[in-house]
Parts: sequence; C-alpha cells; structure tokens
Amino acid sequence: MTAELPLDQVRTLLAVVDEGTFDAAAAALHVTPSAVSQRVKALEQRTGRVLLLRTKPVRPTESGEVVVRLARQLARLERDARADLGMSGEGEPTRVSIAVNSDSLSTWFLPALARVPAELRLCFELRREDQDHTAALLREGLVMAAVTSSSVPVAGCSVHPLGTMRYVAAARRDFAGRYLRGPVEQALPDAPVVVFDRRDDLQDGFVRRLLGGAGGAGPLRHYVPTSEGFVDAVAAGLGWGMVPEVQAEPLLRSGRLVHLAPDRAVDVPLYWQQWKLDSPALAAVAEAVTRTAEQTLRPR
Amino acid sequence: MTAELPLDQVRTLLAVVDEGTFDAAAAALHVTPSAVSQRVKALEQRTGRVLLLRTKPVRPTESGEVVVRLARQLARLERDARADLGMSGEGEPTRVSIAVNSDSLSTWFLPALARVPAELRLCFELRREDQDHTAALLREGLVMAAVTSSSVPVAGCSVHPLGTMRYVAAARRDFAGRYLRGPVEQALPDAPVVVFDRRDDLQDGFVRRLLGGAGGAGPLRHYVPTSEGFVDAVAAGLGWGMVPEVQAEPLLRSGRLVHLAPDRAVDVPLYWQQWKLDSPALAAVAEAVTRTAEQTLRPR
Repeated sequence: MTAELPLDQVRTLLAVVDEGTFDAAAAALHVTPSAVSQRVKALEQRTGRVLLLRTKPVRPTESGEVVVRLARQLARLERDARADLGMSGEGEPTRVSIAVNSDSLSTWFLPALARVPAELRLCFELRREDQDHTAALLREGLVMAAVTSSSVPVAGCSVHPLGTMRYVAAARRDFAGRYLRGPVEQALPDAPVVVFDRRDDLQDGFVRRLLGGAGGAGPLRHYVPTSEGFVDAVAAGLGWGMVPEVQAEPLLRSGRLVHLAPDRAVDVPLYWQQWKLDSPALAAVAEAVTRTAEQTLRPR
Repeated sequence: MTAELPLDQVRTLLAVVDEGTFDAAAAALHVTPSAVSQRVKALEQRTGRVLLLRTKPVRPTESGEVVVRLARQLARLERDARADLGMSGEGEPTRVSIAVNSDSLSTWFLPALARVPAELRLCFELRREDQDHTAALLREGLVMAAVTSSSVPVAGCSVHPLGTMRYVAAARRDFAGRYLRGPVEQALPDAPVVVFDRRDDLQDGFVRRLLGGAGGAGPLRHYVPTSEGFVDAVAAGLGWGMVPEVQAEPLLRSGRLVHLAPDRAVDVPLYWQQWKLDSPALAAVAEAVTRTAEQTLRPR
C-alpha cells in the first residue's frame, strides 16, 4: 500500500487531521493552504475515496482513518529507527500513547508504568476513555495501545488477555441501614444508586441478575464519571454501587462500607490491545503492563 | 421570546439535538421524520437563522444553542412546578446536572453534595469537564451549573466566587534526589514532568515564573488525565508536578513526596456558575456547594 501512496500526501493528510483545518496544517508544514488542499485531493483521487469530512475541525472518514493510522505508524517506525541509530537527541524522548479504562487508571496501571526502565526515556500520553471511543482511537492511530474490556481486536491490532477486575456491590453502613433493610433482591431496585455514566450497565446488570433477568437499579441515580469520585460518592452515602474490589477492600475492612451480596461479585475481563508493530518502546510497555496485571488482577 | 417561538417546535429541536438524528427524534416523539424536519425548518424560518448543522450526529449552531438552552430551562421550570404542585411521583426524582473540574471532583465536591438534604430526592448528573467545554455545556443548557476557574459569566448564568485551590510543586523523594539536586530553577526545566493533559499549563507556568518569564517544563512529559492518576504518577516517581495541596498534604507529611519550592504556591480561584433560574433544587445545591467550599477552599 505504501508504495502506491506518496508519503508527502500521507503526511499532509495527517497534519490536516491533527491541526483541524487546512490553514493550520499549511502553517505547520510551511506550505500554502492551496498546496495542502491539492495534496489531499490528489490522495483522494489516487485512493478513489473521500478521506476527509470538510467539517470544522475536519474529520477523517473511515477510509481516511486507515491512511491516518498508516501515517502515524510510519512516523513511529521512523522514530524507532532513529533511536536505534543513536540519532535521537536528548530533547526528543519517545512518546507512547495509551488509552486506559478509568478503573484501571486509578488502581493498577500507574504502578505498571513505573516499572518501565527509565533509561528508555519514554513519555506516556494516557487517555482515559470508554470502550467505544477506545476502538476509534486505536483505529485512527491516535493511541498505540489500550487497556480495554473488549477482546475483539481492532483492525491492525493484537490482543492479549490481562486478567479480570472484580466488582462488589457495596454501600455505606448507615445507607444500608436506611434503604436496604429487607432481602437485598427486594430493596436494591428502589434504593438510590451511584452510576459511572450513561453507558455504565454494571449496577443495572447486577440487579437484573439478582432478579433473574428483568428490571434494573432504581430511578434515583447519581452519575459520577470518575473512578475515585464514584467510590467517594458511595462512601459519602449518596447511593449503593458496584465498586472495584481493590478500592472497596480498605473501606469494607474499616467498616465504612458494607458488602451487600458477599457471594455475588461481577468479574470484568481486561485485555491489552496494541498495534501490530515491532517497536521496542511498545514492547517494553507491554511487558511491564502484562507483568503487573498478572500480579494485581485476578486470573481469568 | 417564548411567545414568538411555538413550544412544539422548540421541543422538537431539543429532541433532535438530544437524539442526534431526525429519525431518532421522530421515534422518541412518536411522529414521522418528515414532521420533525418540517418543525425544525419552520423554527429556522421564524428565527431567520440556521439552528442545526446537519452533521451526524446533528449539532446546534450558536443560534441553535440559545433555543436548546431555552428548551431545557422550560423543561426544568415545568418539572419544578409539578414538584411544587405535588405532581412529581415517587418514580420521578429531580435531576440536577453539574459540570465540575477534575480536581474539585476528587477533593471537596462530593462531600458538598452529600450535604444536600436527602428529602429533596435530587439526582446528580456530574460531568467532569475542562474549562472550554464547560462554557459550551452551560451555554447549550446541558448542565445547569458548573464549578469553573473562569469568572466570566456564560450568557444566562450568574457567577459566585467559591475560594481558591492551592497547588504545590512536589516530587517523590528519590526522584528529587536523582533529578533535582541543584537549585530548583536550574534543575526543573530538564526533569521529567507529569502534566494533566495538553491544555494543562500549571507546570509550564510555574517554571516560567521561576525563571522570570521564559521557558517551561522539560520535554520528557507524561500526560495523565485523571486527578488521582496524576497524584499517583508523581508518587510513583514518573515526574514532578503541581499537586493540589489537599492531596499533597498527607504524602508530604509521610515523607513520600517532597515540596520543591515551599515558598511558591499557585492559587487557582474557583467559581460557581449557574443558570439564572428560580429553581429550589438548584438553590439547595448552590447552598451546599458554597458552604462546603467556604470551609475547605482557601479564602480568595
């Protein structure tokens, strides 16, 4: 494919996507806006496809995403080659961009990154993203790797299982005393609940399983879209919620939280997805991440 | 304004924005897509303005945002009136949507919400947003209030100062021993640094002020876009960073972190912006938030 796609045109497309407009890309590349426009048009004629939606900012089409990913992978290979040749100066650390789901980011993921040897001079660019968005980021090449709960490989990526994260149903002790006095199956569907965001189905799914398939958590629901905020909200007594076991553990031990259904936990499997690319930087990160995950997550 | 804008058209516009497409709005409103399209066109003719960009999903234009905000405020007033009339059933709690900056959300904000009387049966929908986006959310009426660092009122909103959040330059003890041995002004510009995201200027601004106006933090920078992840990254020794004093305090006391420039802190003022709207729910939240802020933030 690269043999047929002129690299200056591929790089120009990337610049337009990164800068958002043809004018900004022209400024970044030190060429005229009309040169930028001509190169993108030439690339579209060559591929026979519309590559950019001319919105503000511009957005790549599905075909455009393929070319943008190619451009980013080429840039990465070039940088790795320069590093191998000793051409990477002091001022140019190697950037590794990774999408991480929120609960991993607030529990085991940063200790994993701290294990990557400092001599590699890597810079981490972390993005906290939900499932759907993560796939788009990998596809478009905006991140090189991701911790995700989906085992379906994104095009051009490999997948490696990391282990499972366990969630337990928990509530503040006095909250449970007030709202959850009867059998948990009866009380839970009416009690105030804390939910991460509109896509978070953990609480509803838990109640559905308790009730044998129907219903969900109650209508009085608070949306708190950060991992620690979520635990704080449960600990403050705003509602019950499915809390990652590692975060619930100290609060359960101290008696601040109570476990609502000790025999029923929800296990979410996590996976490492990364570009199929022979990059030493990426390999070092994958090694540290998979090793830490093995030690901190539950086995599948 | 409302006298001149037919309410069914205003509500239809809101449905299109919320559902993303004309077809989905038609399904939600139980009318045909062509009825939806006609109402939006009629509203555009009446206002003499394009209100929607026909993208996928559709997006409101600047004029469209004004109408969307109006629609949401009308819905809110209607809901409050029904609650006052005792028409709000058990199943319909009052929803209060608030945008909160990340550091507030992980420190003082949830204890504030826990102080809102439970009898009000409010549901909180929190959004963690950066500055620029928060203004858009208020303007478009997607949130009713926001904790922000901007004192410039968004159109249709009132502003109330909350106090200031103090940030201190901190690093892990062994990190400081390795990278920051000389005078801090000389060592800091070359040391690895942790930055929240691409818009976070706290670290660069701190170094610029140290150096008297020029330069910034070093090129080896890690982007960690969650508040607790940020503190964890500094505590794991990935780099130095500007940490909220309340989060740094216990780590400084235990000796895990060291204070890099004890006589130089950065104070960020915070403000409460909310719709100018006589809503009892909103007033109760504003009361709890301003009172907690008074007790936990530094005075201006």
